[in-house]
Amino acid sequence: MAAARSRRVYVPGRLHPGLRVPMREIGLSPTRSVGGAEEENPAVRVYDTSGPWGDAGYRGTVEAGLPALRAEWIRGRGDVEESDAAERAGVGGGGGSEAWAKRRPLRARGGRPVTQMEYARRGVITPEMEFVAIRENQGLERVRSELSDRERRGSLHHQHAGDGRRIPAEITPEYVLGEVARGRAIIPANINHPELEPMIIGRNFLVKINANIGNSAVASSIEEEVEKMRWAVRWGADTVMDLSTGRNIHLTREWILRNSPVPIGTVPIYQALEKVGGRAEELSWEVFRETLVEQCEQGVDYFTIHAGVLLRFIPLTAGRMTGIVSRGGSIMAKWCLAHHEENFLYTRWDEICELMAAYDVSFSIGDGLRPGSIADANDEAQFAELKVQGELTERAWRHGVQVMNEGPGHVPMHLIEENMRKQLEWCHEAPFYTLGPLTTDIAPGYDHITSGIGAAMIGWYGCALLCYVTPKEHLGLPNKRDVKDGVIAYKIAAHAADLAKGHPGAQYRDNALSKARFEFRWEDQFELSLDPETAREYHDETLPQEGAKTAHFCSMCGPHFCSMKITEDVRQYAAAQGFSEQEALKRGLEEKAREYQRERLRA
Amino acid sequence: MAAARSRRVYVPGRLHPGLRVPMREIGLSPTRSVGGAEEENPAVRVYDTSGPWGDAGYRGTVEAGLPALRAEWIRGRGDVEESDAAERAGVGGGGGSEAWAKRRPLRARGGRPVTQMEYARRGVITPEMEFVAIRENQGLERVRSELSDRERRGSLHHQHAGDGRRIPAEITPEYVLGEVARGRAIIPANINHPELEPMIIGRNFLVKINANIGNSAVASSIEEEVEKMRWAVRWGADTVMDLSTGRNIHLTREWILRNSPVPIGTVPIYQALEKVGGRAEELSWEVFRETLVEQCEQGVDYFTIHAGVLLRFIPLTAGRMTGIVSRGGSIMAKWCLAHHEENFLYTRWDEICELMAAYDVSFSIGDGLRPGSIADANDEAQFAELKVQGELTERAWRHGVQVMNEGPGHVPMHLIEENMRKQLEWCHEAPFYTLGPLTTDIAPGYDHITSGIGAAMIGWYGCALLCYVTPKEHLGLPNKRDVKDGVIAYKIAAHAADLAKGHPGAQYRDNALSKARFEFRWEDQFELSLDPETAREYHDETLPQEGAKTAHFCSMCGPHFCSMKITEDVRQYAAAQGFSEQEALKRGLEEKAREYQRERLRA
Repeated sequence: MAAARSRRVYVPGRLHPGLRVPMREIGLSPTRSVGGAEEENPAVRVYDTSGPWGDAGYRGTVEAGLPALRAEWIRGRGDVEESDAAERAGVGGGGGSEAWAKRRPLRARGGRPVTQMEYARRGVITPEMEFVAIRENQGLERVRSELSDRERRGSLHHQHAGDGRRIPAEITPEYVLGEVARGRAIIPANINHPELEPMIIGRNFLVKINANIGNSAVASSIEEEVEKMRWAVRWGADTVMDLSTGRNIHLTREWILRNSPVPIGTVPIYQALEKVGGRAEELSWEVFRETLVEQCEQGVDYFTIHAGVLLRFIPLTAGRMTGIVSRGGSIMAKWCLAHHEENFLYTRWDEICELMAAYDVSFSIGDGLRPGSIADANDEAQFAELKVQGELTERAWRHGVQVMNEGPGHVPMHLIEENMRKQLEWCHEAPFYTLGPLTTDIAPGYDHITSGIGAAMIGWYGCALLCYVTPKEHLGLPNKRDVKDGVIAYKIAAHAADLAKGHPGAQYRDNALSKARFEFRWEDQFELSLDPETAREYHDETLPQEGAKTAHFCSMCGPHFCSMKITEDVRQYAAAQGFSEQEALKRGLEEKAREYQRERLRA
Repeated sequence: MAAARSRRVYVPGRLHPGLRVPMREIGLSPTRSVGGAEEENPAVRVYDTSGPWGDAGYRGTVEAGLPALRAEWIRGRGDVEESDAAERAGVGGGGGSEAWAKRRPLRARGGRPVTQMEYARRGVITPEMEFVAIRENQGLERVRSELSDRERRGSLHHQHAGDGRRIPAEITPEYVLGEVARGRAIIPANINHPELEPMIIGRNFLVKINANIGNSAVASSIEEEVEKMRWAVRWGADTVMDLSTGRNIHLTREWILRNSPVPIGTVPIYQALEKVGGRAEELSWEVFRETLVEQCEQGVDYFTIHAGVLLRFIPLTAGRMTGIVSRGGSIMAKWCLAHHEENFLYTRWDEICELMAAYDVSFSIGDGLRPGSIADANDEAQFAELKVQGELTERAWRHGVQVMNEGPGHVPMHLIEENMRKQLEWCHEAPFYTLGPLTTDIAPGYDHITSGIGAAMIGWYGCALLCYVTPKEHLGLPNKRDVKDGVIAYKIAAHAADLAKGHPGAQYRDNALSKARFEFRWEDQFELSLDPETAREYHDETLPQEGAKTAHFCSMCGPHFCSMKITEDVRQYAAAQGFSEQEALKRGLEEKAREYQRERLRA
């Protein structure tokens, strides 16, 4: 963020002292009390997804790509080798003179999985695990461990008790290891994406959000997509999916990967389809496998694979309001029908797992039969596929591959919880990754809101990753403004979910912002918000003068009607009666209240 | 709405044949099937709040004010008389030569309540009751009565079962009467606001939304506020609150009332405070009473009155993160402390009730101690006041006055349900009217979204009226764009809540829109949406050509990747095999699936 009082800081590791975990630190003004005394307000550290691009001191360019932060960690494990790039001449590289064009892709040596899950099962705490542990705490270890419920009301440390899930007060590397080994969380981190700053997806961690970008055959350029990616992570996208189709799929993805500090996901069947001229029936395992290898070597961190769309489920969609709305799902349905054969992604699952284990690409098992309308929510087709997703999850785990499961879609509020419950049960607590869900169909142009409602709720229920929906959903490709609107709506949903889960420390930022608001520290309120620029701009629209930002009332009400000012007056009045501090004020007021009660009893 | 295929229709009454209940009817294009055959899609009628302003044939002006729709109904009951306007010379009227300036205010004759509640208790079905009954059905009586759950998937009539509350398939005038008599619903309808098109607020009816407008001492003009009101009802505001302060409170309100087809609410203490120069401690019962009479005579339909802010509760706010954030609440707190006396709104409650019964002004019992931050949600102060709101509700009912209760505010998702549960219990099922609630504090500039999440949820739980929050909340006064953004976000929340409650017929519009979307009837999709203009504009941004609106693919994916097109192909493919209709297709596919299963068993 460009804001003056906000700066990038790095927290070092303990097990891996070379780690530098990025956070954004927001400096605050002191509180000025009635008597004129000042009291410091501690700086607030927040999770920062923007990567080196968000460090004011960073001087890199898009052409050079980001530094290979993880290169030594990966090679240091001694279990990878360079693959023979000559075999695939023409598929790798940036297609030009870019620095990264000469790098040779890595793969596992000797067929042993090189996944974070595999390391976790062996009890090895990788730098990636320690990195995410530090990152998850947001520098709030002290706050998190001091949390308690009712008695601390009014304190910055106060937080409402959540729904009782046991999220530890401090996230340790050992805890991360346990969750990854168990499959309850994933750290998507392809060994060929060394630019990545590791992050974790699991329901005992902060709720994360994904932003989709990608050009289509109809519109948009590589430069635009790279810029959208940087824009999305600037505003808080934790992962980005490149859903490009049409020309330049490979090259677009290469530029995105080399410049992305967050995990990149793709739907490989899109590129495979391009390779067979857009004719779904001509897809084959060979073309798909070649595409997977290509993307594994490029560094894609997770693949959406629609292996749960089985031949026997397709008839279940015939009576739907909106049939099959997933692109990958409909492509595979068409293939299945054309060949009268079972989905080859399902029949080749173990081979796919072996391949992904050799690069540590995570699965995002697609939900090709997700509902595309409120009418189709929670139907037989959808849940039939979800059960298969569970079966595929277990099989992937046997290969040591990290897994998350994709979920809906369009679901009315009262049917959302059933999705989460079944996914937890059938998919053995692998992380859930949902698209919204949209809670009504009647607001095209505002589906970041229809879906933000559902996303917040399912995040509360336990969903780990929320795929954003932009205002352009159903209407067109998102531009930069739409990307930002989608990201902010989903940051809201994710944070609201963290609060509702009672995620330790989540409320600290709310408290700090509310305190700033109540004390008319306008600049602090702006800086602590998800979008300081917009907050400042909206304030200035009504009262543009600089002085208005220090005024003890605001444009909504004017001086006489400002409730916060009146509350101040109430406190001052009480202070004038001899109660100078809050506690004393409270005692004094209680005394008054008791008097009043006595009078009532006499009356 | 200005859209071409959307038109105003009026439905007549049966008990009161003169009634003309407005609805918007959206004409749809036929479905073109693969073989070229056309099938009609029935027009969809939707609830319409825009009043005569939304009727393309209406020629009135703001200066003339709206027609006095209810004038004869009110006088026809024979229980009102003209009050002596001379007594209050200078307070009534539009302040100029406007047509309405000469109208003399009405009041109940002989002290008998003239409220809808009173009539309902006596078993009288008023025109207002029949009007709202017809309006609530949205012309969907047939759809509503044919609803069933699972077996109708894919049909326009399909609707998911809700949470089991008993909302009848057809809303009858008798049902309305019962709910109003019981206090579970209100029809805010001051006898001096004859321009009003009656509407009902209660949890067994469609969830409604309120839009706040109003100038402040710092900004905005009368013209702007009237225009904001008309803008708000155009987009779907069911009620509007005029929260003006500063200069011109009376005149602003007069212009708004004379032009408003929806109920207008106010917070009378704001004007009372202006009358005493902004000094809360100088407020008195006399000044307040005079203000109430003035506003009763003008035609305000509901009053927010902060009578639950009791002296003994004020100390409970001293340790809060954000003290007292309600303007009315803080004004009364200041008065209580200054006088060491109980809140005069509380002590004069019965007198206030008598006054309001004489004009049929409804109570919106204020929540002056609502939480202004996540930290303060559901605390002792808030719930202490809620209990008193319940006591005040019962007392108002004894006077025949209609009542709703205001609620929070800022509440994390997991604490929302407790608010609804306690309100139902303590306030005896009187309608709940909440401000959001906002589910996090960290997104100023986006509080229509932070609060839209909470609003949808509490609407599902049973809240009857959702007070919108605009993007400018906490930052400045909303302009027209903000008003629209707030209204649309809340229409989404209200409709999502109706779906989740299983409100009969609510899903019909979603179904119609989804069917249009799936069949690439773009114009129908736009017209059925909450904001056709924005949907059309977003579509055109990517593919502006007129032809794109009939294309069987769209800009997001291009022709090869369009899942809807592929589903069509799947259907066509199956049709080519000899299965021409959906049912036949389904049977054919099932046969294939059985073959597949047999093969699996053999293998």
